Parts: sequence; C-alpha cells; structure tokens
Amino acid sequence: MRHSAAHVMAAAVCRLFKDVKLDIGPSTEDGFYYDFDLPKRLTPNDFPAIEQEMARIVGENATFDRQVVSREEADRAFRELGQKFKLERLADIPAGEDITLYRSGDFVDLCAGPHVAGAGQIGVFKLLSVASAYYCGDERNVQLQRVYGATFATRKELDEWLALQEEAKKRDHRKLGRELEIFIFDDDVGPGLPLWLPKGGILIEELEQLAKDTERAAGYQRVKTPHICKEKIYLRSGHLPYYRESMFPPMELEGVKYYLKPMNCPHHHKIYAAAPRSYRDLPLRLAEYGACYRYEQSGELFGLMRVRSMNMNDAHIYCALDQFAGEFLAVCRMYLDYFKIFGIEKYVMRFGTRGKEGLGRKCVGEADLWARTEDLVRRALRDGGVNFAEVPDEAAFYGPKIDVQVWSAVGREFTLATNQVDFAVPGRCGLVYKNAQNREETPLCIHRAPLGTHERFIGFLIEHYAGAFPLWLAPEQVRVMPITDRQMEYAAAVVRELESHGFRVWLDDKSDKIGAKIRRAQLEKVPVMAVLGAKEVEAGAVAARRRSGEQQVLPLGDFVAGLKMEREKKGL
Amino acid sequence: MRHSAAHVMAAAVCRLFKDVKLDIGPSTEDGFYYDFDLPKRLTPNDFPAIEQEMARIVGENATFDRQVVSREEADRAFRELGQKFKLERLADIPAGEDITLYRSGDFVDLCAGPHVAGAGQIGVFKLLSVASAYYCGDERNVQLQRVYGATFATRKELDEWLALQEEAKKRDHRKLGRELEIFIFDDDVGPGLPLWLPKGGILIEELEQLAKDTERAAGYQRVKTPHICKEKIYLRSGHLPYYRESMFPPMELEGVKYYLKPMNCPHHHKIYAAAPRSYRDLPLRLAEYGACYRYEQSGELFGLMRVRSMNMNDAHIYCALDQFAGEFLAVCRMYLDYFKIFGIEKYVMRFGTRGKEGLGRKCVGEADLWARTEDLVRRALRDGGVNFAEVPDEAAFYGPKIDVQVWSAVGREFTLATNQVDFAVPGRCGLVYKNAQNREETPLCIHRAPLGTHERFIGFLIEHYAGAFPLWLAPEQVRVMPITDRQMEYAAAVVRELESHGFRVWLDDKSDKIGAKIRRAQLEKVPVMAVLGAKEVEAGAVAARRRSGEQQVLPLGDFVAGLKMEREKKGL
Repeated sequence: MRHSAAHVMAAAVCRLFKDVKLDIGPSTEDGFYYDFDLPKRLTPNDFPAIEQEMARIVGENATFDRQVVSREEADRAFRELGQKFKLERLADIPAGEDITLYRSGDFVDLCAGPHVAGAGQIGVFKLLSVASAYYCGDERNVQLQRVYGATFATRKELDEWLALQEEAKKRDHRKLGRELEIFIFDDDVGPGLPLWLPKGGILIEELEQLAKDTERAAGYQRVKTPHICKEKIYLRSGHLPYYRESMFPPMELEGVKYYLKPMNCPHHHKIYAAAPRSYRDLPLRLAEYGACYRYEQSGELFGLMRVRSMNMNDAHIYCALDQFAGEFLAVCRMYLDYFKIFGIEKYVMRFGTRGKEGLGRKCVGEADLWARTEDLVRRALRDGGVNFAEVPDEAAFYGPKIDVQVWSAVGREFTLATNQVDFAVPGRCGLVYKNAQNREETPLCIHRAPLGTHERFIGFLIEHYAGAFPLWLAPEQVRVMPITDRQMEYAAAVVRELESHGFRVWLDDKSDKIGAKIRRAQLEKVPVMAVLGAKEVEAGAVAARRRSGEQQVLPLGDFVAGLKMEREKKGL
Repeated sequence: MRHSAAHVMAAAVCRLFKDVKLDIGPSTEDGFYYDFDLPKRLTPNDFPAIEQEMARIVGENATFDRQVVSREEADRAFRELGQKFKLERLADIPAGEDITLYRSGDFVDLCAGPHVAGAGQIGVFKLLSVASAYYCGDERNVQLQRVYGATFATRKELDEWLALQEEAKKRDHRKLGRELEIFIFDDDVGPGLPLWLPKGGILIEELEQLAKDTERAAGYQRVKTPHICKEKIYLRSGHLPYYRESMFPPMELEGVKYYLKPMNCPHHHKIYAAAPRSYRDLPLRLAEYGACYRYEQSGELFGLMRVRSMNMNDAHIYCALDQFAGEFLAVCRMYLDYFKIFGIEKYVMRFGTRGKEGLGRKCVGEADLWARTEDLVRRALRDGGVNFAEVPDEAAFYGPKIDVQVWSAVGREFTLATNQVDFAVPGRCGLVYKNAQNREETPLCIHRAPLGTHERFIGFLIEHYAGAFPLWLAPEQVRVMPITDRQMEYAAAVVRELESHGFRVWLDDKSDKIGAKIRRAQLEKVPVMAVLGAKEVEAGAVAARRRSGEQQVLPLGDFVAGLKMEREKKGL
C-alpha cells in the first residue's frame, strides 16, 4: 500500500508539473518517498495541491497492472517518455532477470512490485517534507528532490502517528538540552564535541555512580588510561587497517605518530598484559568510563546522537572459554537490569554475525573460529531467554557483535550500546594466561558498554523522559518555595535540612507570586516542589507538590525520609 | 664550606689524574659538584682514592688566599696551566668587574669566593655520584664529568642526611608504583602516558570524591568538556603565541587544525559565555577533573612527576573585582585544609610576579593592570596570614601565579599545585557580566588546582606515605586472614560484613601459615589485618592488627564501627 502511494504521488506530480524526471519511489516504515528531478523547486506549499491530485487518482481507482516486458520494449517506452533515470536504472538490471512495468491509469513505472490491486485500496496519506537527495546516493551525481509522505490504513492511525511525531519533536534532545541547560555545542571548539554544562555534569556523575556501583557489585575493577597512543598499537590491534576512516588523523611527535583513541580496548589489553595471568585471575573485568574520539563527517553529526567525542561506559572481560557463556549472559542481564531502572520496556538485541563476504576484507580471523564463537553467543542468548534477532554481516571486525536497540517512551528507536566478542585481538596482542595445566592459552575478551556513551544515552534519556528526569537523576531535585518573605527563614532551614541529606536543592527567593514560582519550576521540570506557607511554618511541615500536580502536606521529617527512599530505590 | 670542599675535591683530582681540565665547581643545597674534562672515565670506584686525597688536603690545612688580578695576569696564569675552560670563563667576565683567584696550597682557581679561611674548617664529606654534563649546559658543547659530593659540619648531620636519601630511594614512587601495582608506563602506548592499574584507579576515585565533596560544599559546579578544540580558540586565548612549545602538534580535519587541550580554561570560558551573566551569577565556580596533554621532551619525563597526560583538579572562578580577595583567600584556605588531611606540615606558596623584562615578550597585558592584580594577591595573602614567598619573573603569561610547594614526610620538596589570577584572558575571550548598574564589565578569573594533577599528587603521596596509605585512601583496606581452614566460614562472613559497609576487603584463603600471611599483607602495606582464629570465631570477634604491629581483639561490631569512624574522619 505504501509503495503504491508512492506511485500515486509520482503520477500526481507528473500531472501537475512539467518536465518531471522520475527516479525511484520505495516505501518506508511509515509511508513512502519518491525522488524527482523537475525545474520547479518543490516546497511544502505545493503539498495541498499534490495531495488533492493524489486524492483524485485514488478516487479514479485505476488498477495496478503488472506487465513483463523485454529489455527493448522497456527501453523504447522510457525513451518515448523522456525518462533518462529510468533508462539508467533499466541498464542496471542484470541480464536474465525479469523486467516488469506497473501501469495505473496514465502512469507507468519500472518497478518490481508488488502493488495493491487498485488505487482505491490506498488508505489515508499526508505529505511530510521535501529534501535533497543525490542520484544513487552519490554526491558526484545530480541532486534530486525527495518528497516524503506517510500512509496508514485509517485516519485514526495516521493521526496517532502524527501526534507521536509532534511529541517527539517537543522531546527533541537538542532543543531540550539547550532549554534545560544540559549541554551546548560551540563552533569555536568544534562540531560534534559537546560541552556539558553543570546540569549535564550532574547527569554524568549520577550515571557514572550507577555504573560504578553496578560494576563493583559484579566484580569489575576500574582503570584509567590516556586518550592517545602510538600508531604501533593500532597497527597491531587491527584498528588501523580496518577502522582508519573512523579515526582522527595522527599527531607526529619526535618522529612517532600518535592517535586519539577511538576505543579503549588496546589500552585495557596493555593493562591485562602488565602482569603474568593465571586461570585463577580469570575472569578479569576491567572497567573505565573512557573518552574516545571518532571521526564522523560534519554532515553526519546529529546532536548527541552522532558526535566526535564520546564518554563510553566501557569494560573488557577477559575469560577462559568455559567461563564465556556465564560472563556473556551476566552482561546481558546487566543490560536488562538497567532497562528496568530507566523504564525501558521495549528492546531487542541485534546479534550481528559475519556475512559470507566479510572474511579478510572487513573481518579478521579464520572461518571456523567465527563459526564457533557465533555459536557460543547464539546458545548463551537462547539459554538465557534474551530477546534477540540475528542479522548477518553486522559483526565487528574482530568478532560477533550485539547492538542493543531500545525504544523510548514515545516509540522512537535508538541503538544504545554494544556488546562484542573478541576472539582475534587478544591473540594478536599476545595476551595469554596459564591454564590449570600450566600451559599458555589465549583468553576470550568481551567488550561491553551497557550504558553506551554518555552522549547517546543522555540524548536518549532526554527524549525518553521529555526532560522530566526521575528524582535520583534530576539535576535539581527539590525547589523550595516560600509563599511570602515571612516564610524565608523556615525555607532556609528546609534547604539546609535537604542539603544535609545530599539533595540538590534550590531556594526560589524571588518576589514572584507562588503561582509564578510553581509555573517556573514546572517549566524547568523540577520533580519536587516544597511549597511553604504560614500553615507549614507553624506545623513544621511541607506542602510537597509533584510535577504531576499532585500535592500532599507532610511533616518535614516524613517529607525528607520519603524523598530519601525514592532516591535510594531510583524510582521512575 | 661546601664551595671550599669543591675546590679541595678539584685539587685532589688534579693530584691523582693527568690532564685534568677544570670547569666550575659550585656548592649545592647539601654539598657541591665540580665539572672536569679528563682522559680517564671516573667511576664510583675512584671515590675512595679521591676522598683519601681530599682528607690529606684538609689535613694540610692550607689557607684559601684571595687575590685580585688583572685580566692579563689571570690569562697568563691559566694559559701556563693549560686550563682552556678557565680561559673561556675569564673571557666571559664583563669588562670592569674584579677578577679574583683563590689559591690554596698548589691549587689555583678562577673564583669569586667566598671561602673558609683554611681547608681544616671543612667538615665531613662524601662523594655521591658522577654524571655527564655539557659545558655551559649546551648539548652542542663538549661533555664533561660532573662529580657530586655531600658536606656537612658534623658526621652526625652527614649520616642523618645519607639515611634520609636512602629512605627517599625506598619511597621512590616509580619503584613503589610498580610494586604496589598502582600504575605502569608502556612503551607501545608512549612515554609520559601513565596507565592506572585497578589500585591506582581506586586512589583516583577517592581523591576525586574528596575534591567533589570539598568543591560542592564550597559552591562549585562540575562541568565536562572535550579534550580537543580548534586552533582558533588557542589563538584567541593566547596559548598559541605564548605556550606553543608545550602543546602537542595539531591534527588536521576537514581543513581545520585541532589541538589536544593543554589546559581546561578556554573550554570553561566557553561555558561561562554560553549564557548571559549578571553580577547576581557571580562568583561562578566551574570545576572539572580535566585530562590535559602537554609536550615535554622525552629526556625531561620523570615517573609521574613529569608526564605528557595529566588529570587536573581544575576549576575556574569568575568573579567581580570586589569579590576577588575573598575568593582568592578561600582557595588558599582550601589548600591548607587539604594539607591537614594529607599530613603535609611544611609548605610555602611561591608568589610569582612579572619580571621587568616580561611584558610583551612572555606576558600579555598592560603594566598597571599587572601591578594592580599583584597588589590584590599580595594583600590577600598577607591579610589571610598565609605563608608565602614572592619570586619575580615566575608569573603565568596571563597574570600573577602561586606555585604551592610542599615537603614530604622525608623532607623532599614537591611543586604540587598552582593558583593563578587571570586578568587578561577573560577580556580577550569577550567574557562579560552586567553589573548592578546594568553595564558590561569583564570578570576576573582565578585558575586553581589544589590537588594538582593525579599524576604528580599520587606520585607525591606514594613517597610521602612510603606506599602505606591511610585507611580511607588505601586500595585494599582490610585483609581478612583465617588462621586455618576451620575459620574459613567465619572469615567469609567477616568479609561480607565489611563489604556491606563499603570497605575494600580481600580474603587471604591461601594455605600459608598465619605468619606468612601477615608478612605478605605487611609487604603489600594493607592498613588493617583481621586475624581470625578459633577464639575469635567463638567470641564473634576479630584480632585487629595494624601495619604498625599493634594488635587488639574486638567484637566484630566494634571493629567495623571503629573502621567506619576512621574512614569518615580521613584519619592519617
């Protein structure tokens, strides 16, 4: 249906404008797009006319007729229509494959189908936007105009989807990040290099504390390594042959090239190698919230989602083969525990395996090592009952990989974190341990980062919570609001009491009316407001108001105790 | 006396060896050295013979005779003696200055003096080492042999000094850092780039926690900034013209040069500038344990003391002129509070002011701005009763500077931290605030780093504590030692109890005798040992043994409570 809607839109554009050259028009998850070349520059102002013409075509209910033709027939047809892109696309179809045309009314397209039987079966649609796109995605080619649309079977579905889009826009982490003073970008510093403001600093501290506590309980040890190292190490690890295009260019010092680290692994491997290891030392779990630098083209950068500097919730687990399944599952379970804390209800672990073509070109190692490790991961995931989907050709160059995808509260999908098995690099870096028979073996290494990078995770959380962070995470946890100046002394005492229990508190001592104070706190998404009037002073109490508007008068002691419990439990 | 001893050593060397060319022989803090050129390669094996000859010369008690001579007379004398370096040194004496010779027995030297009356007044001495030194310190010149010696008035003083040297060697942070598994260097990563092992990671965590708690209580806010930025920012801040030789070379990306940050200030200035500021926002205190990168020549690198990567206890305080004295003194007091925690008893704040020559060449700004700011600092230090010494020509390029020097428990001096006033850069970076009259003013900025860098501070602490860290800081706080396997179950319960109170505990469940276990813990400098025998199991108690050997049997509850109090108080 969505693909058929693309044809209908193309037909409408051809009817309305002159000299339209058609390229292609596939369906998307929620609709479709079509790429055109035409003299007129399309804008959203043209959408009503196009939509009206589309409605007319749908009303005409022309059938979609499939027609298998010879290469010569197709060539003649598009040559007559003056459709040069279609001729090029036709030439790209390998010899021996069927060539099919779809006709509906006066519109004909080179298309493999399938389509609905008639245009009347297309539900409701709405054009969304127009953007530039290079022919075949290659920037050396001509720029086309791409028109996006959404299609759903019913008006209700379309309206719900549009409302969700609207909500997502309001939750946009770039907009909220500025408004809530979480981070900035600065052109003088450089694109893709976020600077975290004090409120962002608090989010980072809280997330790191959570990671440290979780990892400590799970037997990890924390290390700290520099952000640069010599070229040599990346040649040996395999990053330079396989990963160069994602790295910053080198700095040359005293005749040696140094690189900003794109990953923490080689440094951690060096720490593993710093002492002789025996099977009794394994599993060895080295953790670091390490700052890495990766090169993304300026055009690819996107808020906190695609950056050049990233602080990664990284760790490497070195283990023996018979410890692998247990360690791997423990890591998966740590992901699930985090999801619970953050109220992430929908997730999938994409298990990226090596494609047939990958070996040698994109991937290191031998075929049966890959097969064995992939099998170990598959079995661990199955035995652990983890929700996963297998995707060929998405492995890391050194082993199978799991990308964790989560959906935010408004249904947006994020790739958050990865979990990778490395059977190649430990061997390359000469990492060994003595087994129980006192013989040298190479450990396996699990790379994992359940909280991903601060950049991407905080970007996700901003949208997920719409900036309204739960108490434990909120940069400002409680705002104390005296109704008049006469409550100022008591308000100061309440602030002191909260601060002595480690809460982040701010006293709104401005001379505004209480309504204005509440509105301001609401706008700044402070989770708890402590409203203090004459009655509260007299009773040694607090009128505790939540973001939701819910209000309850409590003795100060109970108020503080309740907040402490909520913070401790990391309540949502 | 020490300078006279240098003459005596030179005389002894001339008596014992052939073709000795003399350069110069000044005194040092604890003795002296003399630079020679002679065919024989001197080694410590030659020291006894030289010392014996020196003793003979002291026994002869020849007088030191001062003689003012003409340039021609001096030239003739050293030409006859074949002392070419002396002739060059003579030529360097500016016209019009007195030229003096000192004779004692058969030895004559070009020397400004003064000296003791007779060689008999030289106390006890000991030759220490021999090293290479370039003539005039210039590596293009000939290499000389430099012999070091120590001299003290009495044998007792010399022996005490030698013992201290021995102790300092044992406390050497490079040796202890390896032995106690705190950090490593790795040639593949690069010189001057420490990798912190898990135990070093704990020291870092504890120090950062201390800094965060202290700074939070003092009204600082934490930010986080990237490790690189565009060239542009360092051109504007003045780092590139004035500091280029200490920076890493640039990386070029999409036609723009990026530098590793040598300091955090420009990034923090950007955060200041990210919002409009009013006098009500000041003082604004932005803190970050920021990792900076500075270029030091390979030959200058020294353990953790001179490195290329450093994690700095940094903060910048932006304030109005009338807030300056208060903020500056508060910073000085924070230093003193830290000294108390770490048991640093001797310190001096070196107040580096601008030399007469500095303006324009090494320093930015105008003369009267410098004078005014220096005066503010001087008055704040005096009014606050801080122990300081004024040193001209040691300012930073952007303002007066305080280097904090501390002495370790064995009397070694360390330059730990700096505290700088910046009146130039905020203006250059266009930082402003609206004053009470709603007019724009430029804030002053205080750069401060009381705990210096992790690298230098932990290096200092390792030597200061000889690796025996106090309980709160120790990587391993308690080692639990069952005497036999029969106490293993109770030992595990003790471990769990301690861990539940957040202690870093290790169970020594090896099958060694208790004596061996204690010796091992002693060697690894664990502050508290919990020895558990049959009696302790029965009584639910712990035989708590300190590193000092002191032992006390306590009920488990009291033992844990005592440790918690000690940790809380950060007891030494």
